[in-house]
Amino acid sequence: MLTMQDALARLTAYWTAQGCLVVQPMNTEVGAGTLNPATFLRVLGPEPWRVVYTEPSVRPDDSRYGENPNRLQTHTQLQVILKPDPGNSQELYLGSLAAIGIDVAAHDVRFVEDNWASPALGAWGLGWEVWLDGLEITQFTYFQQAGGLNLDPVSVEITYGIERIIMALQGVTHFKDIEYAAGVSYGEVFGQSEYEMSRYYLDDADVAANRELLELYAAEAQRLIDAGLPVPAHTYVLKCSHAFNVLDSRGAVSTADRAAEFARMRRLAGDVAKLWVARRDEQGHPLGLAEPQPEAIAAAPAAEGEDRPRTLVFEIGTEELPPSEARSARTYVQKELTAQLEQTRLEHGEVRVHATPRRLIAVVTGVAAREADYTQTVKGPKTTAPEKAQQGFARSQGVPVESLETADVNGVPHLVVQKHVAGGAALTVLTPLLAKVVTGLRAAKNMRWNDPKLAFSRPIRWLVALWGDEIIPVAVGALSAGRETRVLRTAAEPVLTVASAETFMETISINGIIADPEDRRELIVSGAQELVYGEGRVDVAGESPLLDQITYLVEQPTPLLGTFDERYLELPDAVLTTVMRKHQRYLPVRADDGTLLPMFVTVANGPVDVDLVRTGNEAVLRARYEDAAFFYRADRALPITDMRDRLNRLTFTDKLGSMADRAARINALTAQLATTASVSSANAAHTARAAELVKFDLGSQLVTEMTSLAGIMAEDYALNAGELPQVAQAIYEAELPRSAGDALPSSVPGALLSLADRLDLITGLAATVGLPTGSSDPFAVRRAVLGLLAVHRAHPDLSTIDLFTALDQSAALQPVNVDPATLDATRDFLTRRLEQLLTEEGHPVDRVRAVLPHASRPAVADLFLAQLGRLVASPDFLSLAEAIQRARRIVPAGTEARYDPALLKEPAEVALHTAVSSVRTELPSATDLSHFTEAALPLVAPVHQFFEDVFVMADDPALRAARLGLLATIRDLGDGLLDWPQLRL
Amino acid sequence: MLTMQDALARLTAYWTAQGCLVVQPMNTEVGAGTLNPATFLRVLGPEPWRVVYTEPSVRPDDSRYGENPNRLQTHTQLQVILKPDPGNSQELYLGSLAAIGIDVAAHDVRFVEDNWASPALGAWGLGWEVWLDGLEITQFTYFQQAGGLNLDPVSVEITYGIERIIMALQGVTHFKDIEYAAGVSYGEVFGQSEYEMSRYYLDDADVAANRELLELYAAEAQRLIDAGLPVPAHTYVLKCSHAFNVLDSRGAVSTADRAAEFARMRRLAGDVAKLWVARRDEQGHPLGLAEPQPEAIAAAPAAEGEDRPRTLVFEIGTEELPPSEARSARTYVQKELTAQLEQTRLEHGEVRVHATPRRLIAVVTGVAAREADYTQTVKGPKTTAPEKAQQGFARSQGVPVESLETADVNGVPHLVVQKHVAGGAALTVLTPLLAKVVTGLRAAKNMRWNDPKLAFSRPIRWLVALWGDEIIPVAVGALSAGRETRVLRTAAEPVLTVASAETFMETISINGIIADPEDRRELIVSGAQELVYGEGRVDVAGESPLLDQITYLVEQPTPLLGTFDERYLELPDAVLTTVMRKHQRYLPVRADDGTLLPMFVTVANGPVDVDLVRTGNEAVLRARYEDAAFFYRADRALPITDMRDRLNRLTFTDKLGSMADRAARINALTAQLATTASVSSANAAHTARAAELVKFDLGSQLVTEMTSLAGIMAEDYALNAGELPQVAQAIYEAELPRSAGDALPSSVPGALLSLADRLDLITGLAATVGLPTGSSDPFAVRRAVLGLLAVHRAHPDLSTIDLFTALDQSAALQPVNVDPATLDATRDFLTRRLEQLLTEEGHPVDRVRAVLPHASRPAVADLFLAQLGRLVASPDFLSLAEAIQRARRIVPAGTEARYDPALLKEPAEVALHTAVSSVRTELPSATDLSHFTEAALPLVAPVHQFFEDVFVMADDPALRAARLGLLATIRDLGDGLLDWPQLRL
Repeated sequence: MLTMQDALARLTAYWTAQGCLVVQPMNTEVGAGTLNPATFLRVLGPEPWRVVYTEPSVRPDDSRYGENPNRLQTHTQLQVILKPDPGNSQELYLGSLAAIGIDVAAHDVRFVEDNWASPALGAWGLGWEVWLDGLEITQFTYFQQAGGLNLDPVSVEITYGIERIIMALQGVTHFKDIEYAAGVSYGEVFGQSEYEMSRYYLDDADVAANRELLELYAAEAQRLIDAGLPVPAHTYVLKCSHAFNVLDSRGAVSTADRAAEFARMRRLAGDVAKLWVARRDEQGHPLGLAEPQPEAIAAAPAAEGEDRPRTLVFEIGTEELPPSEARSARTYVQKELTAQLEQTRLEHGEVRVHATPRRLIAVVTGVAAREADYTQTVKGPKTTAPEKAQQGFARSQGVPVESLETADVNGVPHLVVQKHVAGGAALTVLTPLLAKVVTGLRAAKNMRWNDPKLAFSRPIRWLVALWGDEIIPVAVGALSAGRETRVLRTAAEPVLTVASAETFMETISINGIIADPEDRRELIVSGAQELVYGEGRVDVAGESPLLDQITYLVEQPTPLLGTFDERYLELPDAVLTTVMRKHQRYLPVRADDGTLLPMFVTVANGPVDVDLVRTGNEAVLRARYEDAAFFYRADRALPITDMRDRLNRLTFTDKLGSMADRAARINALTAQLATTASVSSANAAHTARAAELVKFDLGSQLVTEMTSLAGIMAEDYALNAGELPQVAQAIYEAELPRSAGDALPSSVPGALLSLADRLDLITGLAATVGLPTGSSDPFAVRRAVLGLLAVHRAHPDLSTIDLFTALDQSAALQPVNVDPATLDATRDFLTRRLEQLLTEEGHPVDRVRAVLPHASRPAVADLFLAQLGRLVASPDFLSLAEAIQRARRIVPAGTEARYDPALLKEPAEVALHTAVSSVRTELPSATDLSHFTEAALPLVAPVHQFFEDVFVMADDPALRAARLGLLATIRDLGDGLLDWPQLRL
Repeated sequence: MLTMQDALARLTAYWTAQGCLVVQPMNTEVGAGTLNPATFLRVLGPEPWRVVYTEPSVRPDDSRYGENPNRLQTHTQLQVILKPDPGNSQELYLGSLAAIGIDVAAHDVRFVEDNWASPALGAWGLGWEVWLDGLEITQFTYFQQAGGLNLDPVSVEITYGIERIIMALQGVTHFKDIEYAAGVSYGEVFGQSEYEMSRYYLDDADVAANRELLELYAAEAQRLIDAGLPVPAHTYVLKCSHAFNVLDSRGAVSTADRAAEFARMRRLAGDVAKLWVARRDEQGHPLGLAEPQPEAIAAAPAAEGEDRPRTLVFEIGTEELPPSEARSARTYVQKELTAQLEQTRLEHGEVRVHATPRRLIAVVTGVAAREADYTQTVKGPKTTAPEKAQQGFARSQGVPVESLETADVNGVPHLVVQKHVAGGAALTVLTPLLAKVVTGLRAAKNMRWNDPKLAFSRPIRWLVALWGDEIIPVAVGALSAGRETRVLRTAAEPVLTVASAETFMETISINGIIADPEDRRELIVSGAQELVYGEGRVDVAGESPLLDQITYLVEQPTPLLGTFDERYLELPDAVLTTVMRKHQRYLPVRADDGTLLPMFVTVANGPVDVDLVRTGNEAVLRARYEDAAFFYRADRALPITDMRDRLNRLTFTDKLGSMADRAARINALTAQLATTASVSSANAAHTARAAELVKFDLGSQLVTEMTSLAGIMAEDYALNAGELPQVAQAIYEAELPRSAGDALPSSVPGALLSLADRLDLITGLAATVGLPTGSSDPFAVRRAVLGLLAVHRAHPDLSTIDLFTALDQSAALQPVNVDPATLDATRDFLTRRLEQLLTEEGHPVDRVRAVLPHASRPAVADLFLAQLGRLVASPDFLSLAEAIQRARRIVPAGTEARYDPALLKEPAEVALHTAVSSVRTELPSATDLSHFTEAALPLVAPVHQFFEDVFVMADDPALRAARLGLLATIRDLGDGLLDWPQLRL
């Protein structure tokens, strides 16, 4: 059996053979190998660097006293840096797995999107988690930035999680059982340290001392930066980071502290990085300069040969793209290539684009050998232009004046030249066109690798461009197109030469690549259904988002059925499926009645050893479920009030107190909202109990581990504790909606809690951190506002709740002063979000703006908008609205709605006065537009007549005043119901 | 070429193959691999443990900005722990050298005594530095104690200095030129870090911050000890240690601070060790219990065969003994074996003992096959005893009463029994006897290894015990004697079987072992002389101590002549020879005029590759001289007053200020002493200038590196700076004597400075730290006192200086209060040391005590003692002394030396009165004993007559008073010259 220490030695030897230096772990505590100066500093600047080292990585937060089988306060990373990116690092990595005896062809090794960022280091990169049969064993990143500096060249960072790999290889389920060396277990060697260091990090570390350490380290780091010494400064930044982590694991870091510390560390790390770069510069780069990849030079297209139309195939080969990026890149290529071809005169058939995680393939049939020739008309001066101008035009076109022709341009006769233009050969036309398609590829988040000219979601590694048998000599950055494509990395022949565009799809298909996403999805669905046939079913519709994702995780889908121990079914459905979907991308399998079965479908990539891969995936799921079950049992054994008491130990934010304080505020606010909404006594009782318990599950271990289960576990634990179902439901619903499009509270108690929760968050953070600006919204206040609006809109039964009033109430409960300006701004923020929301839902902007007076009660705004939608078809309403708008335009500001009826003489004005007098008493009771319109109906004709007949601005001042007063009465009709001037009629 | 990273990998692989675990370096800064818990904690307790790891070892003090070719603030150790001692760890170690391509047979690999201790860790062990051609490459230690706890089993600790080994293997002279990995130099990889971390440790580390860190770490360590968590506590002890080292390298640690911090760290480390042991105990020792070496069981001696006398050979094989221990063990074996044999009746020839670093061999020729039979006489009751007693005696002896015989015992006839006792066979007699010799072996400092019963300077690994052809079945601890001996470890057959005792010496001799130290010394001397013949000479007499040492460093001396670059001869002789003798054990080579030649003789062990070994040793010497030359040039370029100013930065002790303060006090005190001694004006001028400069060379780099050169360099640098030779000499002599037996100042200025220096040290430390007690004398106050006495005694020209007065003067100059009790105790301490010294010089105790009134002026005490030696042969003096003593006995205390001469009547008393009156005026001017005796001569006869004739205690009180008064006058003769009652006449 391969021991852990042998594995480390073999991996080190493997990478040494690839030209890596071996260095030692950092001699101060670090959270990851990335922090070692051999990575953090060396990835900066232009010097080449290849290194491999082991790094014991300390994560105080992961302390579990050695009890959790998979989590350790110190785990072992093996870190590799390849700088510059050699272009084949994935293949080198697979070689390293082989070096420790992993048969990469038999196992399911996958590169699953994972974008790494360390805000504290000002560092980020794009890449993958590498999965071995569903188990994350390695982090693989193209490092883009460190210390806030762009990295050029880019480094490849490969970080192996050694304990996990070894546990999988040795088939053990607890880290302590790893055979560390022959005959010696990991637990025997490190067990005591694991326990004791956990004790330190979780229970015994002195908070005050560690705070002092943090300050001393930060000050020393700053002094060393000022002294121009990046190496010792970096050491102290690392010490800062560790001290911070210790404080965090002791629960002594508030959200605000965290933000401030991250900002400080980011600043220090940035200064260190800048200094390092400057020093290396001064020293003239002792390790030399990395050779950049030479740019490919486009060859001249082959001489024309073929005359008949041929198929065009253009393949853009990449490293594993994130599913969403592969999808949007497919769309882009489809559109862009179509548009580009449009601009040529090349006859061609349909453009069809396929996409997998590793390639985009455009196939265009019947692409003509050449563009058709055509006649180009060049416009010259008007025929009436002086002769000199005409001659000049002819000269500029290289034709005699006699050959100028005449043509109409916008009805004016101009001189023109008709030129014969010969069409370009297909290869000539397509070469720049395809290059443009590649350089135009962009993702939501782009990276650089070793290519001087390209930036995309993941590296582009090869291009195939064929027109019939011919290579289209596309050259982009360091790449030039050829006829070599790649299939699965584990294939016997991973690189294939393709004879012609016509045989391309067949060639890769024979070699296992299912290029068409629809085909893959179908294979996955049918394969899964076949696997579970007779046992249960996969909810194809319900799992649609997951299926879409899986489709883009594999090129050759190989669905496998795995099982898990039935006893895990005691866990709530949401726990089981969250693990399956979110963590493992497994399809749950259900019985006909919808209950979960102890099985799952996972989809491997390529012709793996099915039993091996199944076993591996089952082990991963077992470990995850074992974890969850452990926490679930522990949680259910604890009274929920005890769990709630733990909220005292969780900081919400520095200024806004603990999570318990927040829960108490929600409780108080909920009661006020319930009173405002005059809910039924049953609802009131359920609300009150639920509000007492709100958020208690944040104190549970399971929610600590899987935060997305907040609320879900509350419901489960509350029911388990004997709470009423309505109460349990309300606590769950308090968390809704968790994201855009999520379910909304269906019960009144749930809705009240949800509103109170969001109101508390919004006012508290508005007063302390400020409202979100631009893309910066660290506390997700924007999401809370959207949730608040959504819940209110979903509950017309609670529409008496005025959110602006509720904001005031919430503000009064905050431990900090919420000043009037902040409340103003918050109200405005809400209003703007509602406006945006309603507009995005397709309502005309004018109507949306018209109903914004009801922004404080979005449910009412909805009602009015709906009524408006109907009323705009009513001529009566339109007349009325027009009258009101007209009155508003005419009547000077400040005019009161009073007049002396005796002064009115004209029949139209008398009639209007009469009509107004008769409806005036009814109108104020019209609380919606329909009632208002109905009530105001008698006014429509008189108003119309008034404007026809009466000249308002009479010379007699008294008369004019009376008429304006009458019109002001019209102006004020429906005041408060709509912002009438906004309506475009 | 073997790169550094490959060497680390190969050594790790080698030790892994020997069953070692591989662990990672400590992730907090440590000064050595020993501090890693994989050593410090794991060597404790009964669990077995084998480990290998690399440890970047941080020594802030060794920071040199990367400029010194051999010194780094972080160097790389490879650490191996073998627990329990496998018994062949030296052989395993040699195997590891072979694993990195070192031909151990061709090179001169030596185990040179080195005893390791870390007071801060409460840890120590005995072992060696391993030399490769004169270069120290490894520390090899049998770890005896850690955290103040005895280690059982004992661990073998092997610590490789990787950079040094690699520099030697790669033949580079600067660490930066090491090929770290293929094509990458050490300097390229670590150069910047070396520079910047040096900057931090030497210049930029914030002293206040590091002090705070030290306190925080110590507090956290203590808290964790209180919490019962040894692992995190240990981490904080390490952090303490590093913070302390940083402060030290910043020059911020006083001697008192150092002692206090060491005490604190020792206490913390001790508590950590105790806790660890307790925890492992509680856990039931997860790694099991180390198997103890089984004790050997003594076989029964072979049946008697041989009848004729045969040779006895007894070889005790050891690992390399320190030279002094080998010498004293040889003496012990000689004495003990002789004494043991004395107690037998075994006829035998001469006992001859040989000794080498690895063996003690006793050879006894002509050892009879059996003891001679003999008749034993058992004494019974007197012949006059009752019959019952006679019968009882006969019964107890198992003989009939009739066979009792009669014999005189002290002239009284007794009954006796004559018994025939048969002698024992040689093997039977020798077996327990030889065992006793082995178990009786003891060294000044003893260690344990894997033997349950033995303790000695170094492990005993084998026994050969032969009488003729027969094995004498000695069993001691785990060892049993046989006929297998060992020769050089690098021999083709390192283990040999010996046929018989008679062939033993020849067998090992043929195989290269020169067992007799005298033979080896002769081989070394003649070999060296031959090597330098025609070139120069080796000062055999002058280098005698070094030759004695070398004799015990090798078993097969192979002298080699090496050379060094002539330009190093610019260095002072003392520098060159200190390096050669003290650091390298090389014999200097001189021209006939005594000047050094650029060559040296080193003595390798065994048939090495001479050129290889020479080259290696030359490289080592070159590196050392290069270092020294660098410092020497730098020092000489600096004005000596600037050098002196650096004393401000050197702390003497916390309470006694800087070294500059101390020098100022010496300066002031010297002036006072010079006045007291009324020295000539020339001497006064030289003294004054020398006193201004005293100790300035402590500020030089060379003395900082090689403290034993203090004073020597001062003279050189002072002359170089143009000071007068007398001044330069005095500054040098201020440091004399540096040890017992060292030269003493020959000049008056030098003597004055030397006295002042020692007086300052003694009073200052007596007042702050206290006088030495028992063996605890951290500041060498005892040595200072002995030096003070020696200098005074060597300078009768300065005998007017009273040391007690000088102590008072020195006390007045101290920055602290020196109270009267301390001064009393100090005077007493001086007196007692003088008494001891004089006694040890062979003077009779009574005379020594008699001269102690002159303890404050030891030169005067010497004078008196010399006079006493002559005077004790003079009857006159004896009479005088007797008279004085007799008068003292008779005269009651308090009696004054006054009387009324008129009352005296008896002729004898009148005569005495007359004699006394006549000499009384002359006596006080007699300042020495000879004058006194001469002056007092007229009293001798009258005193004698007085005691003959006069009855002092007359009845008449007046007469009695007059006679007592007269005697009191005698009593007070010579008062202050001697403590007369002490003299035994």
